[in-house]
Amino acid sequence: MIPNTNELHPGLSIDCVIFGFHENELKVLLLKPKNDDCWALPGGFVKTDQDVDTEAVRVLKNRTGLDDIFLKQFYLFGNVSRNKAGHVDKMIENGMIDESLREWFSQRFVTIGYYALVEYSQVKSPTPDDVSEDCQWKPLHDLPELWLDHYEILKRAHHDLKKALNDQPIGLNLLPELFSMPELQALYETVLEKELDRRNFRRKMLAYDILIQTDERRTGGAHKPPILYKFDKEKYHKAIENGLQSAW
Amino acid sequence: MIPNTNELHPGLSIDCVIFGFHENELKVLLLKPKNDDCWALPGGFVKTDQDVDTEAVRVLKNRTGLDDIFLKQFYLFGNVSRNKAGHVDKMIENGMIDESLREWFSQRFVTIGYYALVEYSQVKSPTPDDVSEDCQWKPLHDLPELWLDHYEILKRAHHDLKKALNDQPIGLNLLPELFSMPELQALYETVLEKELDRRNFRRKMLAYDILIQTDERRTGGAHKPPILYKFDKEKYHKAIENGLQSAW
Repeated sequence: MIPNTNELHPGLSIDCVIFGFHENELKVLLLKPKNDDCWALPGGFVKTDQDVDTEAVRVLKNRTGLDDIFLKQFYLFGNVSRNKAGHVDKMIENGMIDESLREWFSQRFVTIGYYALVEYSQVKSPTPDDVSEDCQWKPLHDLPELWLDHYEILKRAHHDLKKALNDQPIGLNLLPELFSMPELQALYETVLEKELDRRNFRRKMLAYDILIQTDERRTGGAHKPPILYKFDKEKYHKAIENGLQSAW
Repeated sequence: MIPNTNELHPGLSIDCVIFGFHENELKVLLLKPKNDDCWALPGGFVKTDQDVDTEAVRVLKNRTGLDDIFLKQFYLFGNVSRNKAGHVDKMIENGMIDESLREWFSQRFVTIGYYALVEYSQVKSPTPDDVSEDCQWKPLHDLPELWLDHYEILKRAHHDLKKALNDQPIGLNLLPELFSMPELQALYETVLEKELDRRNFRRKMLAYDILIQTDERRTGGAHKPPILYKFDKEKYHKAIENGLQSAW
């Protein structure tokens, strides 16, 4: 439900790009606003007595059931042009909101973009919000039409995520606790949308010094079972904070 | 002057951390609010008919006279606790603002942080705004007390700038058009606040492939004149956009 608009920070919204990874496929979680042809990013507003980052965590939790997920604030979208004339009329016509909310939705909004990357099989039942009729994972490369500037927000999130891999690790909460080097490489290839050289990948990843090699092997396959690794969580989190490169 | 508050986006402000580099020293441009003991970051509000990024450029230009400077939006500070009870009373007591602005300033504000790095000798006369009595460069390591959460904003900007050097070049607009490798290294050392190994620095910097070696030499010194470089601007800007590392 949209809370009492008197309790909300005016002109400020949140949009979350929730990337889902599963079996080497990248998808994004979208909502279908009631009676609309377009889909939309999950989002929300900011209560005046709540921290903005806390509200973003709440959006993620309400749609996915997940918390304790790394959610990155990546950009404030603040262009005047993102507020479209006629958009609120359409929301009212479609029965998404009633007339009493016209004034609230007709403000100029700036929106803070967040992105998260989750293992999407962990999201048992993606949950629509009160103004939506559906909530689904959609493949990044076969997206439906998105409303307002949500496609631009999504594209920028993916660009920022790819760029972040130059200097930050990913994998924690996405891979099983123990994983092989090919599994980690497949995750990177999926997010980066390109193939990587096996030996280079292994060399660089080991040089980052965030992996712990275990004595365990996965059994059952026909081939020689691969070495399994786990993340050194302390070093992993330090790399998130300060960057992977000790470039200088 | 503070514009008609009816024309401003409610509850939204901008704060700019303007780093200045000159002769291997890093400073930050601060304002002295009228009759206050603390100093503050240059900032402003967002007109409802203006893009947020445009307003940040205006703040930078009004304080420094500079435009066409790379200004990076780095974080939205959105915690409730940043709004201090009593702060507006003090502003009114000090004669910074009059009673008619009490309501405007008493809102909960979230603020968007931007940082810029400029060659500070290019800033001919740092200019206070209408609620300030002074505008000065202050050394990063000998800062006066800052008001509200401005010290936290400044610290985070510096952290982000240092981290950005893992994956982005700096130097354009900060160094003369032609510069030597030791001059570039000195810039990095100043921003990173640590000494770097000369040979490693040179090797890595050349590997980034953003420098053009020129045939010119600087004359006049007693020693062998160093090789002078300039930035390959196309590659430089591409590296800003996509990152320096072709890590993957």
